Amino acid sequence: MKRFLSTLSILTLFITSSPNAEASIMKPKKDIKVKNLAELRSAIKSSSAGDNIILANGTWKDAEIKFCGKGTKENPIVLKAETPGKVFIEGVSNLKLAGSYLEVRDLYFKNGYTPSNSVIQFKINNDSIANNCKVTQCVIEEFTQPDRDVSDHWVEFWGRHNELSNNYITGKSNFGPTVRVFLDGNEHVNNYHQIINNHFGPRPRKGGPHGETIQIGDSETSMTPSYTNVENNLFDRCNGEVEIISSKSNFNEFKKNVFFESEGSLVLRHGNYAKIDGNVFIGNDASDQMGGIRIINTGHWITNNYFYKIKGNAFRSAIAIMNGIPKSSLNRYNQVTDVVVAYNSFIDCVSPWQFSVGSNVSQKEVLPKSEIRSARPERVTFANNLIYSATKSENPIVNYDKVDGVNFKNNFINNANNSEVKPAGLITKDFAVDKIATDIYSLKQNNNDVFAGFDFENITNDFFGNERTASNNSVGAIVNPVKSNPVLIDKTRYGTNWFATEKLQATANKIMVATSDELVNQIKKAVSGDIIVLKSGTFKVSESIVIDKEITITSSNSKKKSKIEFTASKTAFEMHPKGNLILKDVVISGNKSQNAFTTLDKNMSKAYNLHIENTEITNFKNILEVSKGSFSDNVVVTNSLITNCENGFLLNKETNDGGDYNAEFVTFTNSKFDDIQGVVLDYYRGGYDESTIGGNLKLEGNIFTNCGKDQTEHILIKNRGIVFVTIANNIFKDNAVKTIAVLWGEKGQKPVNNKITNSGKIEIVQNLEMKLMY
Amino acid sequence: MKRFLSTLSILTLFITSSPNAEASIMKPKKDIKVKNLAELRSAIKSSSAGDNIILANGTWKDAEIKFCGKGTKENPIVLKAETPGKVFIEGVSNLKLAGSYLEVRDLYFKNGYTPSNSVIQFKINNDSIANNCKVTQCVIEEFTQPDRDVSDHWVEFWGRHNELSNNYITGKSNFGPTVRVFLDGNEHVNNYHQIINNHFGPRPRKGGPHGETIQIGDSETSMTPSYTNVENNLFDRCNGEVEIISSKSNFNEFKKNVFFESEGSLVLRHGNYAKIDGNVFIGNDASDQMGGIRIINTGHWITNNYFYKIKGNAFRSAIAIMNGIPKSSLNRYNQVTDVVVAYNSFIDCVSPWQFSVGSNVSQKEVLPKSEIRSARPERVTFANNLIYSATKSENPIVNYDKVDGVNFKNNFINNANNSEVKPAGLITKDFAVDKIATDIYSLKQNNNDVFAGFDFENITNDFFGNERTASNNSVGAIVNPVKSNPVLIDKTRYGTNWFATEKLQATANKIMVATSDELVNQIKKAVSGDIIVLKSGTFKVSESIVIDKEITITSSNSKKKSKIEFTASKTAFEMHPKGNLILKDVVISGNKSQNAFTTLDKNMSKAYNLHIENTEITNFKNILEVSKGSFSDNVVVTNSLITNCENGFLLNKETNDGGDYNAEFVTFTNSKFDDIQGVVLDYYRGGYDESTIGGNLKLEGNIFTNCGKDQTEHILIKNRGIVFVTIANNIFKDNAVKTIAVLWGEKGQKPVNNKITNSGKIEIVQNLEMKLMY
Repeated sequence: MKRFLSTLSILTLFITSSPNAEASIMKPKKDIKVKNLAELRSAIKSSSAGDNIILANGTWKDAEIKFCGKGTKENPIVLKAETPGKVFIEGVSNLKLAGSYLEVRDLYFKNGYTPSNSVIQFKINNDSIANNCKVTQCVIEEFTQPDRDVSDHWVEFWGRHNELSNNYITGKSNFGPTVRVFLDGNEHVNNYHQIINNHFGPRPRKGGPHGETIQIGDSETSMTPSYTNVENNLFDRCNGEVEIISSKSNFNEFKKNVFFESEGSLVLRHGNYAKIDGNVFIGNDASDQMGGIRIINTGHWITNNYFYKIKGNAFRSAIAIMNGIPKSSLNRYNQVTDVVVAYNSFIDCVSPWQFSVGSNVSQKEVLPKSEIRSARPERVTFANNLIYSATKSENPIVNYDKVDGVNFKNNFINNANNSEVKPAGLITKDFAVDKIATDIYSLKQNNNDVFAGFDFENITNDFFGNERTASNNSVGAIVNPVKSNPVLIDKTRYGTNWFATEKLQATANKIMVATSDELVNQIKKAVSGDIIVLKSGTFKVSESIVIDKEITITSSNSKKKSKIEFTASKTAFEMHPKGNLILKDVVISGNKSQNAFTTLDKNMSKAYNLHIENTEITNFKNILEVSKGSFSDNVVVTNSLITNCENGFLLNKETNDGGDYNAEFVTFTNSKFDDIQGVVLDYYRGGYDESTIGGNLKLEGNIFTNCGKDQTEHILIKNRGIVFVTIANNIFKDNAVKTIAVLWGEKGQKPVNNKITNSGKIEIVQNLEMKLMY
Repeated sequence: MKRFLSTLSILTLFITSSPNAEASIMKPKKDIKVKNLAELRSAIKSSSAGDNIILANGTWKDAEIKFCGKGTKENPIVLKAETPGKVFIEGVSNLKLAGSYLEVRDLYFKNGYTPSNSVIQFKINNDSIANNCKVTQCVIEEFTQPDRDVSDHWVEFWGRHNELSNNYITGKSNFGPTVRVFLDGNEHVNNYHQIINNHFGPRPRKGGPHGETIQIGDSETSMTPSYTNVENNLFDRCNGEVEIISSKSNFNEFKKNVFFESEGSLVLRHGNYAKIDGNVFIGNDASDQMGGIRIINTGHWITNNYFYKIKGNAFRSAIAIMNGIPKSSLNRYNQVTDVVVAYNSFIDCVSPWQFSVGSNVSQKEVLPKSEIRSARPERVTFANNLIYSATKSENPIVNYDKVDGVNFKNNFINNANNSEVKPAGLITKDFAVDKIATDIYSLKQNNNDVFAGFDFENITNDFFGNERTASNNSVGAIVNPVKSNPVLIDKTRYGTNWFATEKLQATANKIMVATSDELVNQIKKAVSGDIIVLKSGTFKVSESIVIDKEITITSSNSKKKSKIEFTASKTAFEMHPKGNLILKDVVISGNKSQNAFTTLDKNMSKAYNLHIENTEITNFKNILEVSKGSFSDNVVVTNSLITNCENGFLLNKETNDGGDYNAEFVTFTNSKFDDIQGVVLDYYRGGYDESTIGGNLKLEGNIFTNCGKDQTEHILIKNRGIVFVTIANNIFKDNAVKTIAVLWGEKGQKPVNNKITNSGKIEIVQNLEMKLMY
């Protein structure tokens, strides 16, 4: 009773200002400040509509919070930080909500991970589900599992009418979509969830599937009506996998989102009748990894979208219309039918329209009938779209099969169409565009020659929300006049109002070291980005050097490389998560018993990088040996010499055959590989599934000599299952192998201009037999 | 110009009384009477909103009518008969509609068939589609293709918001659903078609698939939202196939329909989220062919339905919940999930709840993995249902697999539950029911012990439309008090207001014949149902006798059978469509060169029947030989002697292996088959598809002697693929075969109490290898 009174004594009584909230007019609302988990639990238990539960500033460690209650529309129960940005949820923590009209705000999840399936979950259990609840103004930053192989979600939607708004969510590097909407049960369908105004910050490459930023449903619930609304979010370098968003249910909407330099696409993977309207897809000049919209299934409407510098191909093209499998099983590819693509603008995209993507009729020898995508799109309409390219770009269409089910009407392009498919409804016209904002171009003059297709009268607005009228309309996403000062990415529209997403770049320190002890200690003490400069001479190091940040090691005199001689037993350098080692102008040698670079055996929670430039590495067991769960974004060897070791680079431990792999980009250029007795590179990706395309190998301008003599399969370079492979302008001389490498013909791999002497040959296998993942 | 004036001169000017029809207030409406097709075409061309186009009384032969126009909601363009029931559309005729707000009424389609895919079609072509159009007060009677194998539909729905109301439709005997809703294209989805107040009269058994009365969508459009409403119709002995209605799209509704003695079920074959509310399913005492609701897929709500004497099993049980195929292909069987079966009444049904129907895990040796239905129902709720049986009926549940995904809540039964599955949520309670109308029973006292499941608050009314309230509710379909004088089948609610569906039964004439000429001529002259009585003695007939109606041939003295000796070349009796030959107490003989009974080679548009009782048939080539397209409802041999012929009954010409077959029921009882040199019976159904169950063979109490000696496969009775087979209490003696018959173990077939001497044996094959249909 005492406690009850003391709680009462801190009540803040006020009268609601909402005119409709009849019931609550006389209800006292409490601000309940809590300082620990026990108090929090008690406050949740005793809370009622209108109460604010306030978490005291500070770090809440190992907090598993079950927030359960019954607010009202006018008077939700709010759980929030005392000061936004000053309440940290850390350690082994999560938050589950159940009930109705609950609101969580201003929390900052970092430096930890969830012990359950999810960080934030809109249910406590199957009998306690959240409806009309909201999580807003929160940050989840690198709250990722220690082991990348452990799967979780950061936000799990269950129930109906829940909202995730104005959050900043970034840095998930383990398996599992960041946000996942579940539809398993009538309580969860027709959910009308709102995922709005969020800033989805960078999600690193995962290497293989299960790295989506948002997944709505799954194949087994793909027949359910979902009605999830994903609107006005910024997807900022969300590079997890080929699907940034995977829509796997019906009637979802994707509106006014910005996909900024994200390596993937918005994919309508399962389910039907999505609306994709008014989104922006921005690629960049260099990358062909950034995609647009990939379309499978029935009845989608793709309108008023703006594609800028999307240079991806096939799965990653601006608009990829796939071939289906006839009578497809639930988890494979249905035919595309009754899709409308209208009033979109494609600016400086290379080949933005690609049809029958995924057609694999030629692979029928190695695939079962139930995997053959031979069903071409049917009853598809492309109308009133604009294709503009400032440079001569004359292949707007790529087709992987006959295009006979697509109705092209009143589409305009400023270049000639020299594609194989030349529909009358794609009209070349010399028109000009105006730059109206950064990355935004619109027609100088409206082109009102539009096609009025079935239900087109419902496309009432343009990209900016301006009305399309009979007298003022135009092909393309934008109708003139455009309101003054349009902004493409207005960062105030996304994420929280308190978190700074852009960190200050620390300036790199140059640290001169003269002795081995200095070398070891300075690397330990360095901050990420620091440059360790070696005095001339030889450094003898008897321990492994841990690389868990960005470290550059270089010589004070690049003409006279300093040398580090390792006697450490396991490895010279131990690569940890986020380790980024740049070796430049140095010589690294071992005693043949240890590796040069080795990852941690476990808990490789995040990617590492390795950059070897103008460097000599010699006398090791293996150059690089990795663990199964590890992942490298980039392994680069350039202008370097790798010599005298048992094996080269072993990126071959991820053998689940689930489409995953150990490195995204492996690049060897202008380097020399000499006397590597085993395999020079073993880079493996297993499992047949074209949707998890990946692995990039580039071997260009290298010289391989005297390698491979102990390789038991008599092969120099193993690259099985890697999708993108370039082998060009190399010299292979006196390597005692039968095979230099096996290329995958169906992926367009072929050797270019290599000089081969006494080194076996480069084979091409058209159709690789791979393990079916489904 | 002259014509225009003369048309104007017959205008009937009037002012609409609709207050909202602004535009039409001053519009002159015309009544345009037309007497031939040219006038009709011209009238249609010149018609506008509010006009009536009136077909003159009489027969309109070979009329292909394209009714195209633009009416308004208040002022449709109407095409109608001068007098309902006096305008006959005959010959090779059809009607296509396109435009909006058209109405067709009072037409009578008979004595003909369509030259196209459909009799009535809600589109003219893909560019001319009907919306908001109506066909009402029409009759389509036996407007069936001459050849049963030719497929058509009688009503094809396209477009949106079309209506088929108050029609009488009966007698379709060829391939193809009677009414078919198409969803191929955005113009046709979200259609909200109304199929209401119709009387679907008897549809004869088709034998195999494609005999639905209504089919909505197909597997390839099963992901589309349809919203077709099927309400308040009478399905009156719709026996076409195992699916009376095949719902193959989403969000369809089936409400307040009566399924009266119809041999099939309302089947949710593809698509999800159907609502089935307030329907009646009436079986009868004798038949186990009448089913209820068969459930596949997700999210259906089955509420307030009333099942009376549904005695069917498995596919034909009152509620059949199927097993699905994991990750099923589009055209096979999805798992059942998230289905609610609540507030239904099951009165005098044998085993009304059957789970995992279609489970075929045991057949995995003969079927590919993609055909194995092993996915049990999940997240299914059975609540607040009532099971009552006046007699001791203690097996309410049949399960073909484990029942672990069904939540049983507050269901009540008046008998013990001695089924294998005994959920706590099925409660035995001694309660009484009242007969409140013919075939309608309700609880004497409400049982308000109801479960409130998710969304159950939306079940607001009972079977009769009475409100379910917190204070007045009950398990079962009916809540007391029931309004006085409820009527289960009020025929004024269904069909037209002008057509008499019940024909007067003509009394049978007995016609004595003394000579062969009299015999032949009197059969020609007889009306259906007549009885031809043969004087004692022998009738020599040199021509084939055509049977195209119901004819009984009998002897004046049953003790001393009259004999007909045939010398006709091809056959003694030629069976035509609708022929029904009853032979009783006679002897029929041939000269061994001709058949006793043969169907037409072609144009067997309707079924025939053959009933042989206390009759001797001898000295023919084959007893019965049929053509591929022919179909017999019943072939009955009882207390008869069949002797000295090459073969017996050859019902083996339907070899498409599409699930079709040549006869529904073949029954041989207490008869003697002697000296049939070839096969006694060849009765064939090919093609694996459990959904097209059929073929019924009963051999009971017969004696087979000296048969089969020339049968090349050494088999006496061939019954491959026939699903229901009884072989009991027969004597097989001295038949020179290896095999009497091969029974299909998986279908529960086994020989009972047969005596076999020197006649080979009856084999059982557990799993028959059959050709996959899909």
